[in-house]
This record gives sequence, C-alpha cells and structure tokens, in this order.
Amino acid sequence: MDWRQNIREVEPYVPGEQPNQADMVKLNTNENPYPPSPKVAEALAGLDPDTLRLYPDPLVTDLIDALADFYHVKPSQVFAGVGSDDVLAMSFLTFFNNPDKKPVLFPEISYSFYDVWADCFHIPYQRVKLKDDFSIDPDSFLQPNGGIIFPNPNAPTGLALPVDTIEGIVKANPDSVVIVDEAYVDFGTESALRLLPKYENLLIVQTFSKSRSLAGMRLGYAIGNEALIQCLKNVRNSFNSYTMNRPAILAGTAAVKDRAYFDRTRNMIMETREQAKEELTKLGFTFPDSKTNFIFASHRSVPAKKIFNELRERHIYVRYFDKSGIDNYLRITIGTPVQMEKLYRALREILAE
Amino acid sequence: MDWRQNIREVEPYVPGEQPNQADMVKLNTNENPYPPSPKVAEALAGLDPDTLRLYPDPLVTDLIDALADFYHVKPSQVFAGVGSDDVLAMSFLTFFNNPDKKPVLFPEISYSFYDVWADCFHIPYQRVKLKDDFSIDPDSFLQPNGGIIFPNPNAPTGLALPVDTIEGIVKANPDSVVIVDEAYVDFGTESALRLLPKYENLLIVQTFSKSRSLAGMRLGYAIGNEALIQCLKNVRNSFNSYTMNRPAILAGTAAVKDRAYFDRTRNMIMETREQAKEELTKLGFTFPDSKTNFIFASHRSVPAKKIFNELRERHIYVRYFDKSGIDNYLRITIGTPVQMEKLYRALREILAE
Repeated sequence: MDWRQNIREVEPYVPGEQPNQADMVKLNTNENPYPPSPKVAEALAGLDPDTLRLYPDPLVTDLIDALADFYHVKPSQVFAGVGSDDVLAMSFLTFFNNPDKKPVLFPEISYSFYDVWADCFHIPYQRVKLKDDFSIDPDSFLQPNGGIIFPNPNAPTGLALPVDTIEGIVKANPDSVVIVDEAYVDFGTESALRLLPKYENLLIVQTFSKSRSLAGMRLGYAIGNEALIQCLKNVRNSFNSYTMNRPAILAGTAAVKDRAYFDRTRNMIMETREQAKEELTKLGFTFPDSKTNFIFASHRSVPAKKIFNELRERHIYVRYFDKSGIDNYLRITIGTPVQMEKLYRALREILAE
Repeated sequence: MDWRQNIREVEPYVPGEQPNQADMVKLNTNENPYPPSPKVAEALAGLDPDTLRLYPDPLVTDLIDALADFYHVKPSQVFAGVGSDDVLAMSFLTFFNNPDKKPVLFPEISYSFYDVWADCFHIPYQRVKLKDDFSIDPDSFLQPNGGIIFPNPNAPTGLALPVDTIEGIVKANPDSVVIVDEAYVDFGTESALRLLPKYENLLIVQTFSKSRSLAGMRLGYAIGNEALIQCLKNVRNSFNSYTMNRPAILAGTAAVKDRAYFDRTRNMIMETREQAKEELTKLGFTFPDSKTNFIFASHRSVPAKKIFNELRERHIYVRYFDKSGIDNYLRITIGTPVQMEKLYRALREILAE
C-alpha cells in the first residue's frame, strides 16, 4: 500500500481531437464556423493588461446582468461558469447528492460526459432507453430517481423535444432537480425557459461555445429559480471562488449584448444545415432531423468508420464514436458553405470509390 | 420533501472583499502591486479574436512547456488550473479520497479554504496545532492520516518551514499525498521542488496570482512526479476537459518566460516588506517574521478590528479575520512604497487618536 490507495479512480471524458493544420476543415467538435461578434474584439482591445494583477469580480456582475437582461430573468437567477461543462460538473455536485442513492437518469445515447461526472462524484445513475427513432422517451423518466438530465436538442442525435413534453417530465419529478442541457438550443429549438416561473426544480444550462462562437473563452451559464441558483453558487464558492477571468467576463458580456450578430450567424448556420440535409440525402445518408449545428448521419452502404478515416486523410475532420448503437454514424458539424462544399466534394470521391 | 433533499450542503469560502474605488489603497487580498510583465500585454495584443470560436488546446501545451522549462522538470510533471484554488480543489478530489476515512491534516491556522474543500467533498479532516510562536509543528503530522496539506510559507502567518523539515514530513508519510501549497514561496522561501526526485508522494502547488501579477487571469499549477500528475489530469478531465481559456494560456506562458521581470518585481516587494517591518515595529506592531507579500500584524494596544475599520473609512483596505486565535491581527498586503506610505500615515493618525 502507498499513496495510491487514496486516489479517486476515474475514466476521464475524451474530448474530440483538436487538430491544427492550416488547410484543415474542422467539423468535429461543433464549434461555430463564424468568428465571435466584432464587439468581443472591441471589448478585449479595451482590456487594460495592468488590471490583470487584481482578482476579477467574483460576482461576475457585468456578465450576469447582461444574461439576465437578454433572457428577461433576475440576475439572481443566473449562474456563470467555465464553459457549460463546468456549470454541469458543479450542478452534478450540487443537485445530485441524494442521500438514499437513487439513480440519476439520462438517455442511453446522449452527451458522453454525464456518466463521467456521475462516476467521478460517486453518483449512481441509470441510462434510460430512447425510442426506436432515437427520440427521448418522456415516460422513461417516470421512475424513482435522484435527478434527471438530458440535452435538448439531444446530442449527438440532434433531435429536440417540445417544451410541453419537457414540462411533463419536470412536473412529474418535483423531488428531483431536472437539468435541461440546452447547449444547442439556439439553432432552432424552443428553450424551456418559459417553464421557470412554474417549476422551481428546473435548471437550464447553456453555453457560449456554440451559438456565440466563444469555445476558446470557456463560458457557460445556468438559469433557474433563485433558490436553485444560490445552491449552485454556494458549491462553486466551496470549490473556487474566482472561476471567471477578466477577459472571459469582458468577452462574454460583449457577445450577449450583440443580439443582431447572434441572430444573423445562427440563422446562417441553420440555413447551411438545411442545405446540408439535402446534399447528404442525395449522397445516400440518412439522419435524424437535426435542430443543432451538426448532423448525425449514417450512410446506406459505406461504413461510417471508413468514411471518417478517408475524410481524415483529406484533412477533413468529423466526429466518430466507436460505441455500440451509434458506431455507424458520423457527427458532422455545420461549417461555412465553403467548408461544406469541400466536405460534399470529398464525400462524392469517397463514396464513388 | 422536495428537490432540496438532494442538495449538497456547504459553508462556502468567503473571499476578501473586492472594493473598487478610484482612490483606494487595496492591501487586502495579497495581490501584486505591480502590473504583469509587459510581455503579457504583448501576448494578449497578439491574440486573434477570431480564434476564440475554437476550443483552446486541452493539453495547455505552451504553458506547461514554459513552466517545465522554468522549473527544470518534465512537462508530464506539470498540471495547470484556473488559479491555485482550482488546482487545490482538484487535488482534494483526487488525492484525499481515502476509503478508510482517515482525516486529512492541516494546520489550525492556515488557508481557510482547506476545511471548505474537505467539507464540500465529504472528506474527514483534523486541524493540527501550531507551536506557540505560530510556526508549523512537523511532529503534528506524525499520526495516521488520509493526506496532508499546508502552505509554505503558511498563511496568514507568513512563516516558512525549511525544506529539510518538509522532507521529514514527506518521508514519514509515504502512504499519503503531501501537498505543499507554495502560493507565497517566491517572496523569499526555498521551494520543496528539490525533493521531487526522491519522493513520489509530494505535490507542490503554486499560483500566478501573487508573484506573477495575474490574479485576474486565474492561473495556478502543480508540480509532482508523473504518476501523481496523471491522476490529477484524469480527475480534471472527468470534471471539465477545457478549463484554461486562450487568453489565460497566452498570458501565463508570456509571464513565465519573462524571468527578469519576475525577479525584479518580487525583489521590489521583498524590499518594501523589510521596510514595512521596520515601520510597523516603530508604530507598535508585532508580527511573525513574514516571508510572503503580506505581514500578519497585531498592535500592542489598539485592537485589530478598530484599526481595520478606521483604515477602511480612509479607503485603505487590509484583511481582518474575525476568528478566535487570530482576531487581534491584520493581514496587510505589501503594496508599492507609495501605497505603504499612505498606510503608515493613516496608521499614525489612527494610533495617535
């Protein structure tokens, strides 16, 4: 025996690879193909480097106020973190601490970080089955549980649930916190935000990494009732009382305030996605009807892994999950029209072989 | 019963207040009075805001390499986090997970976040007594434990242990990870780094918030043997795989590479500290012999709380802990000579009343 006896054993999450080639087409980690709002560049240019010697505002006031204003909620209903992964990790720690060890429920095909957090914090969990069409089955959440989490739209399927269906889940589980992970909600899905006044057990988590083009700045947030948000703040302040650095607060605030740019770029992505659906169909792919900035596609005759590898050789990166049930699918991020043309051309070559 | 049954109950850490007045003299949170290296400003000016749409390097390669180079260790021996609080929180999660629930040991007067982390992660702990002169008693760590952590120099006393004494503690506890929190080590204390080749259960944690003037950028790091660091990375990757944003990586790397600026500014602070010891002694204060960028001082006749409040009225902020055993002390951060003159002048007024 030595110090190893005291180590927390984990199976860490494996993020998508981050290749870095000048000519690459990077469609593998659901980043936004457009740069952040020009207001972000302006805000960062205004950062006086001398102020970096001082701690940032631990209350993250400017960013919280901007988000509260954007979503028409009170600042006390908003929590900010280092990407939505940080917000979700803190939420697992805070809300899924049930003493009688009932399982936390999430879909069997979903964001693959959920079981990593549960394992890391020793939280029991159960994956619930999807319907045959890959959609989330609301009835699967009608069983004893210590918490519920699912993405809406779901990842990597891209399928969305209507808010009324989500309301049924939240209403049926007053003894659990229900977390709706809305990382991709801005690409055509209605947010569950309008349920907040009615249900105090609902937490909505969103990110700046997708629709706000700030994956490199690590910004995410949660919106819920004041009591829930206060619990989350207390746990964050028991972990690290200064998580958001000065540039992140500045950049995030500027991005939220530029609603016009946000709307323009997400609309462009949605348009490109609808074109991509047509192109991929022509090429022999099938896919659930994505409401996100990616398409989860399977080819009728060529195995996904083969396509993945051949795209890779051409420096076109998409995401492949070598996981039973989804191992014949590619998750393709929606890029610019120019990037997508390169993808279609490469796919035509690969599929014609 | 409702969702509240599942909440993690915590007593959050309360950071020093962050007042923001144009004329204030801020000596309350041990920030550096000098701006970060001009190389930091240069590096940030070179940040292309368009790249913020992309995730940062999850391996934080540039920063890790710069730190490895600076400390003459392998990159695989270095871990980076969002301030040393993040590194320490991850370390508590990773290394103090002992199955037989032996207490983690730390000094009774010490960084007040240690018991907050222990409580948050449900880790049993025991505070060990200091000697009468406030110094850490190495013998207090010769008892069964699930881990050991102490700052060197200790906070808020400012007293340092010699590395040979630390070696005794590390050597006597091969079954525990011993964390030496060296937040203030650059102000005149020898680091325990030279023990690393001999002891695989030693973890050294440092920060950019003090000697490198980057509190606002949230940067900290740990150095240890490869096995220990890999455990820490695994847990971090089970929590949040992208914790360091692009500006933080750039700024941190630039700061580490400017050794001349680092040496110049920390020497200035040490000089000002030694002058402060003389001035404060003249004013009737006593204090342990600080090796940090603060002095933990008690006045022979005027209560600390009174001085704290009167300084505050003059917009001079120092730290006061309303905590038994140390409630007649002020923790005064070393500022610039000009700031310190303002402090001495105010103290003269207050003490003459």
